[in-house]
Amino acid sequence: MTADRLSRWLPCNHWLRHYNRNLAGQDALAAIIVTLMLIPQSLAYAMLAGLPPITGLYASMLPLLLYALFGTSSSLAVGPVAVVSLMTAAALQPLFPAGSADYIAAAMLLALMSGVLLLCMAVLKLGFLANFLSHPVISGFISASAILIALGQLRHLLGLPAAGDNALAMAVHLWQAAPDTHWPTLLTGVCSLILLFLARFRFTSWLQRLGCNETLAGHIGRTGPVLILLLAILLASWLDLADAGVSVVGNVPAGLPSLTLPSWNTALAIQLLPAALLISLVGFVESVSVGQTLAARRRERVEPNQELVGLGTANIASAISGGFPITGGFARSVVNHDAGARTPMAGAFSALGIALTVLLLTPLLHNLPHAVLAATIIMAVLSLMDLDALRRTWAYSRPDALAIAVTMLGVLLVGVEAGILLGVGLSLLLFLKRTSEPHIAVVGQLPGSEHFRNVRRHPVIQSPSVLSIRVDESLYFPNARYLEDQVAKQVSEHPGVRHLVLMCSAVNLIDASALASLQAICERLREAHIQLHLSEVKGPVMDQLRRSPFLDKLSGQVFLSQYAALLALDPQTTRLALDNKATVISKPA
Amino acid sequence: MTADRLSRWLPCNHWLRHYNRNLAGQDALAAIIVTLMLIPQSLAYAMLAGLPPITGLYASMLPLLLYALFGTSSSLAVGPVAVVSLMTAAALQPLFPAGSADYIAAAMLLALMSGVLLLCMAVLKLGFLANFLSHPVISGFISASAILIALGQLRHLLGLPAAGDNALAMAVHLWQAAPDTHWPTLLTGVCSLILLFLARFRFTSWLQRLGCNETLAGHIGRTGPVLILLLAILLASWLDLADAGVSVVGNVPAGLPSLTLPSWNTALAIQLLPAALLISLVGFVESVSVGQTLAARRRERVEPNQELVGLGTANIASAISGGFPITGGFARSVVNHDAGARTPMAGAFSALGIALTVLLLTPLLHNLPHAVLAATIIMAVLSLMDLDALRRTWAYSRPDALAIAVTMLGVLLVGVEAGILLGVGLSLLLFLKRTSEPHIAVVGQLPGSEHFRNVRRHPVIQSPSVLSIRVDESLYFPNARYLEDQVAKQVSEHPGVRHLVLMCSAVNLIDASALASLQAICERLREAHIQLHLSEVKGPVMDQLRRSPFLDKLSGQVFLSQYAALLALDPQTTRLALDNKATVISKPA
Repeated sequence: MTADRLSRWLPCNHWLRHYNRNLAGQDALAAIIVTLMLIPQSLAYAMLAGLPPITGLYASMLPLLLYALFGTSSSLAVGPVAVVSLMTAAALQPLFPAGSADYIAAAMLLALMSGVLLLCMAVLKLGFLANFLSHPVISGFISASAILIALGQLRHLLGLPAAGDNALAMAVHLWQAAPDTHWPTLLTGVCSLILLFLARFRFTSWLQRLGCNETLAGHIGRTGPVLILLLAILLASWLDLADAGVSVVGNVPAGLPSLTLPSWNTALAIQLLPAALLISLVGFVESVSVGQTLAARRRERVEPNQELVGLGTANIASAISGGFPITGGFARSVVNHDAGARTPMAGAFSALGIALTVLLLTPLLHNLPHAVLAATIIMAVLSLMDLDALRRTWAYSRPDALAIAVTMLGVLLVGVEAGILLGVGLSLLLFLKRTSEPHIAVVGQLPGSEHFRNVRRHPVIQSPSVLSIRVDESLYFPNARYLEDQVAKQVSEHPGVRHLVLMCSAVNLIDASALASLQAICERLREAHIQLHLSEVKGPVMDQLRRSPFLDKLSGQVFLSQYAALLALDPQTTRLALDNKATVISKPA
Repeated sequence: MTADRLSRWLPCNHWLRHYNRNLAGQDALAAIIVTLMLIPQSLAYAMLAGLPPITGLYASMLPLLLYALFGTSSSLAVGPVAVVSLMTAAALQPLFPAGSADYIAAAMLLALMSGVLLLCMAVLKLGFLANFLSHPVISGFISASAILIALGQLRHLLGLPAAGDNALAMAVHLWQAAPDTHWPTLLTGVCSLILLFLARFRFTSWLQRLGCNETLAGHIGRTGPVLILLLAILLASWLDLADAGVSVVGNVPAGLPSLTLPSWNTALAIQLLPAALLISLVGFVESVSVGQTLAARRRERVEPNQELVGLGTANIASAISGGFPITGGFARSVVNHDAGARTPMAGAFSALGIALTVLLLTPLLHNLPHAVLAATIIMAVLSLMDLDALRRTWAYSRPDALAIAVTMLGVLLVGVEAGILLGVGLSLLLFLKRTSEPHIAVVGQLPGSEHFRNVRRHPVIQSPSVLSIRVDESLYFPNARYLEDQVAKQVSEHPGVRHLVLMCSAVNLIDASALASLQAICERLREAHIQLHLSEVKGPVMDQLRRSPFLDKLSGQVFLSQYAALLALDPQTTRLALDNKATVISKPA
């Protein structure tokens, strides 16, 4: 294997060669800040996934190392993220009791399957599958997920039992169970929320007012949530909140997770396959868009296919080290980038930081109240909600706005998977609908020129014997039959016509369906004693047409330009039009 | 309601006004020929659908009348057709024993549901759904159906019991059961096949040699199958074939069917919904393409949306008169057209012919051997098989050939519905794959001109500070992320660039996903201190962009032409290039 190919499959081979103390220093600083941010988030997102909080830390070690080896983004911070944790919970909660041994094993299996699917997509170059998740679908899905997550965590703030498998049921349940609110838990949660809010929006400016410079204040500001976590643990221990009935994390196994393959269960794997596929795709889309945004700031580039390898191996690593499905997170990646991470080594350093936490600090977690983690989740997901997207998109494109609305309603009222599938199905339907009736214009010659324009928009000259039609779309199955219909309509409206010229300047592709339609059009026109001609066919399209018998059977010719076609088929009118002496002028409506 | 709107919904209102004796004479002649052709076909396709043969005649009366009222094609002959009958059998045989009362009721329900679905599509303008059935899918489906039908009918020729629910199982079953062949049945079937073959390919030329003129010979030639049917009935009665163990049609109820709504069964209806939808779509596609082909010969036009109404009401009529799902058939429609049908009244006359048959001739059918009907079906479907389509399509477009192959294998090995769904799914996937990586070219100025061409194909001049990129595809979700990726790649390869101009001459649409990508591109370029400009944006696309905040946030400008952009951003290089004095020439590879 050449060094070049090795670098392609193992991008670390490239940057490790130039690695030095200076880069290591910058990466280490970024890693410290990201680690302090990652500790509360990974604990919280594990809880969101219905798993013991410690699994969040497990999912934040080995995967980061693997991504550092195989990933191409210098600042992407992988690990547990809110949306993927929600999808994990949605997939597993109907099958096993949350937190049970079966549930934990199934989460590991789900991570393994996601990882393998991502690797398969890399090998089979199927990354384009992520394109099915159009922007409106992703936007609607994330906003609805944020609502669903926040609603789901409210019960932890109120100290109520779980219930409801959709947003409506959850809201109704919370409303009905509100009188049973556990007040010490609520107090803990609300205080956490207030502190987290202050840490997020005020801490940095306070630090600056105290004399910190902006960069340092920004860095210290990121540690707010972990300080609040420590404070909460101290207070909970001191006030013995667990005895007061506040739910706490409890005993946490010490030490690193043992490496083990998740137990295989074919029936379960088949059941989990749709969820694994959606988790892979959603995770990939999120991760790549974050990676691209950050890479562009340094005029770098992430390679989408290699990102599939990076995320795939990271998920497999999560699966074998007691974790659950993960991906590149937005907030942590931005912090990583801003804190100065120069290479993926920053991720490896973060993994080291989490490993030290797991080795040394797990006893601290015993008294951590669940309500604090719930507050952390709620603060994190509130920024994901973008309800204004619906209004903005409605103004721009109603079909796209409809796709957002349907995805949101699907996620909120039916479930995360159903919501995504509904949104994707509707996007495809609307897309097909949109391209199935492309803009088709009858064109005529602009007097005094060789140009041809829409007869409805410009005063142009039409030949009485030659009908010129321009199609503003590639010709493929969504619009092949529409073309047949439109040609038939135009021909029936122009009884004197002997030639029809199809102007193909905007046709980038003619697929087999469209070719069949063109053949049908040609045959039908022949029966009506009209010749079919093409003009301005693009090079690659012409190459393809040459490989079919269409050109041999074509009743007319292929012209280089529309003007050349008219000059050959009706020289008199065309020359008169060019000299501006023609009288047959069609006026726009 | 105005006369115009009435004509649109009730097209007969239009042609009935001009109806006269001359037209009636021509329609009547065509109707006699079509009726004689329809009798054996409708009996045979009813058997193919797993129904008593008489239901085929029922399905060929009222539906023809309704289509005459609501349809727009002057020569389409609706009634039972092979492919739709196969789909009916495939939907019902897993549920009820073929020919049982439940089975017959379910077939009526299926026709009702197809009819209602077609009407819904007409009202909701959902005819574009038929575009999902791309040409390769239809082609593969019909060829595979023909094989499946022929295999299924072979057992009637051999006098064997039914078995096997896919092509492979059927072939294996026929092979294993071959020793049990019932020889009198086989003899009957083979003689019928030979006679039908001669009738189809020799009868007309014999008649011409006997002195008939070509038209008359053609007309009489069409009556071959019905003459063979009569001959078979005579011989079967004379030789008492039923006693020899040859399976015959048996007692047939005399008289017209009673009109009754199919009994409603919600659970069954839900089970049948996918089949009803596919039957509607396949029937609609087949019917419209036949109708369009025939209409074009007279420079007429069929209106697809009104065809939905015509076929919808025809199917509902079939349902309430003891029939099953029907559509416009290819062979009979061509005969109808060639025999001189001038208006849909020809269909009404055919309905009358079938009604007379049902009233007077049903006793004759008692001794008709099933093997003769099987031979009729086999002869009819052999012409549907177009295995060469695979080779031709492979030469033209491999993704389309793959879609044919997968649809065929799906239909043959899994089932008709599964085959269509597999084909449609694959078509969409391949389509998305194809448009997800559109042709994107870096362009430069042709020396001495205002034109811009691909730097890889032409010796052109590139500005050192302005990067010009042309996208040869509309921008929408399948390729939005690819665009982001390609722009990032080009920018990283051109470090000195300060401006990027996106040339949009081939962009017919920018959807919300692509708009989000353009915004992301603009932001990322801004961070890299590069301005994003657009050029040659089409009118409708520009109108839409004006409804979003994109243009306000755009770091650069929108230029009318690529030349105008370059003239504004790098006047020196552009003027030198126009004067043919520039030296920075990029040579094509």
